[in-house]
Amino acid sequence: SRSLSLAVIPGDGIGQEVVAEGLKVLSAVLPQDVKLETREFDFGAKRYHATGQTLTDEDLDRLKEHDAILLGAIGDPSVPSGVLERGFLLKLRFAFDHHVNLRPSRLFPGVGTPLAGSPDIDFVVVREGTEGPYTGNGGSIRTGTPQEVATEVSLNTAFGIERVVRDAYARAQARPRKKLTLVHKNNVLVHAGHLWTRVFEAVGREFPDVSTDYLHVDAATIFLVTQPERFDVIVTDNLFGDIITDLAAAVSGGIGVAASGNINPGREFPSMFEPVHGSAPDIAGQSKADPTATVLSVALLLRHLGYDAEADRIDSAVQADLAERADRPVRSTVEIGDELAARVSG
Amino acid sequence: SRSLSLAVIPGDGIGQEVVAEGLKVLSAVLPQDVKLETREFDFGAKRYHATGQTLTDEDLDRLKEHDAILLGAIGDPSVPSGVLERGFLLKLRFAFDHHVNLRPSRLFPGVGTPLAGSPDIDFVVVREGTEGPYTGNGGSIRTGTPQEVATEVSLNTAFGIERVVRDAYARAQARPRKKLTLVHKNNVLVHAGHLWTRVFEAVGREFPDVSTDYLHVDAATIFLVTQPERFDVIVTDNLFGDIITDLAAAVSGGIGVAASGNINPGREFPSMFEPVHGSAPDIAGQSKADPTATVLSVALLLRHLGYDAEADRIDSAVQADLAERADRPVRSTVEIGDELAARVSG
Ligand SMILES: CC(C)[C@H](C(=O)O)[C@@H](O)C(=O)O
Ligand SMILES: CC(C)[C@H](C(=O)O)[C@@H](O)C(=O)O
Repeated sequence: SRSLSLAVIPGDGIGQEVVAEGLKVLSAVLPQDVKLETREFDFGAKRYHATGQTLTDEDLDRLKEHDAILLGAIGDPSVPSGVLERGFLLKLRFAFDHHVNLRPSRLFPGVGTPLAGSPDIDFVVVREGTEGPYTGNGGSIRTGTPQEVATEVSLNTAFGIERVVRDAYARAQARPRKKLTLVHKNNVLVHAGHLWTRVFEAVGREFPDVSTDYLHVDAATIFLVTQPERFDVIVTDNLFGDIITDLAAAVSGGIGVAASGNINPGREFPSMFEPVHGSAPDIAGQSKADPTATVLSVALLLRHLGYDAEADRIDSAVQADLAERADRPVRSTVEIGDELAARVSG
Repeated sequence: SRSLSLAVIPGDGIGQEVVAEGLKVLSAVLPQDVKLETREFDFGAKRYHATGQTLTDEDLDRLKEHDAILLGAIGDPSVPSGVLERGFLLKLRFAFDHHVNLRPSRLFPGVGTPLAGSPDIDFVVVREGTEGPYTGNGGSIRTGTPQEVATEVSLNTAFGIERVVRDAYARAQARPRKKLTLVHKNNVLVHAGHLWTRVFEAVGREFPDVSTDYLHVDAATIFLVTQPERFDVIVTDNLFGDIITDLAAAVSGGIGVAASGNINPGREFPSMFEPVHGSAPDIAGQSKADPTATVLSVALLLRHLGYDAEADRIDSAVQADLAERADRPVRSTVEIGDELAARVSG
């Protein structure tokens, strides 16, 4: 019999509530012969206040023992901006070499969008997760004086770009449209931009059936609102990926349904799956949060571990649930989770 | 009698056509006693191919003799990406210390937007123009090999941030809502981000009547499509400003009506005004381009030089023209320019 060992990090705010529903749906969808083992971790604001710790080496060792990680949300106004983001989220992405940050955008039927005319949106962004301006490389001199100079250094390697670009090509090749768009700003950030462009072209020769194009990041934001249908798979750097995936989530139904995976494709380390939304302390504890983004993140988790049929069942259940929403009264977090669990096991 | 000495750079593609209409409207709106002198410069792709030059020291000296610069568009597919952008546009911004890159976004009545429900959009982005990741600071080693490492360095100074932040506060103070939003990514780019945040707070003490808030750049893209009414004045770094102003243009009527100024507020050097759109070689020479963005850039130019009443007249003329468009046949570049000229002089 098979087993799935999962590290669960509910985190802060609504994290607890949405993760509970994610686990409920996971249990319901898994085949009988798969033994699900979960271990809960208390990372987040509470632990930071109690111990000053965000993520220790021992924590990383314990997390490593699992097949995957499911995260709710980390962040609280009581903790200074940047502390948990860098001390936990980014530290984990770098420690576990999560170089593929996968963020699908799909506008499901029945779901609202700020765009006029309900465009046909179905693309996925492959964001690099371990390089670029996110490496913490930078500093300041004469800090706090009128002569202060502060730098941020974007680090980019052929090694790091090639592996994420190859992953994106493979994902594009597996989709019906087989189209890959590189997003960068190679007319201004020429050193990093030329490296990205060269690697993108070189790896492309291995995927002759994938059609490609290139957009500057500023132009990409225009197309994301005027012509989102044009995108199939996008590959981009860490910072540009951060920016365009929030915009992509906004146009394709909002962060209530945006899922993401921080993936180590070679499985040397467990990958982590999380909703794109934050901890939303203003609605925490009221069973108001939409667990859909977490449930869709569970689907990404299953797909990463090879449970494709189960992931498909979650996607279909979510799609059916969303399609009916407009005609139904608002449900609680738990009610949505219960119904999704019933649908996937039905 | 007064005089206005203008350097005119039509540039490439549709640049020629739209600049001609911009000048037509400028001549029509200027008071009789103002002597308009224009000198045309041939920068752009043609000159680059003929001479290999983009912008020489002598060019800069000649440009300096003018009160302001009006630019159409620079760029052609025959020139490798980055050459004219960095060799002309960015070189000029840096040489003439255009540290305030001003980009108003206003959804005029009657103008289409990709957003549902025609939101009330009227804000201005003050983008820093001489620092950040745009300084050309970076490089690569082992270039072209699998061991390549490429860097891009974002340079940020208290001096450079303070002057643009103060300019933005003053602009916010002069507007009815008096609201200023700082956009950055200070939870990840902590060195630059903390410097921006500290300067933003310090300068804010001089403007107690301006209300302020802060958004991460990724969250800002969400609000630009879900709640653009929330913005009044935004101040941000060079790269974030590049990205969010293209998105802002897209939601507020498209780049056909987006104007911009590259401003040296102390007037040590001439400021440059240009439509946000590019040279659009595909429609060049067909009188299909909309000159409105250039005409609105002329209004920004006039305002910068103190001709506020004339700038107001252009804004009103454009607003009236746009409001009538839906009910009228499509007009040529020249026809739109003629009508705007008639309106401002009428
Ligand atoms: C919280 C923050 C560090 C993070 C990022 O910038 O990557 C978030 O915005 C995201 O997109 O996951
Ligand atoms: C052409 C390019 C160098 C320029 C920029 O990045 O600033 C453009 O996108 C703009 O916004 O004016």
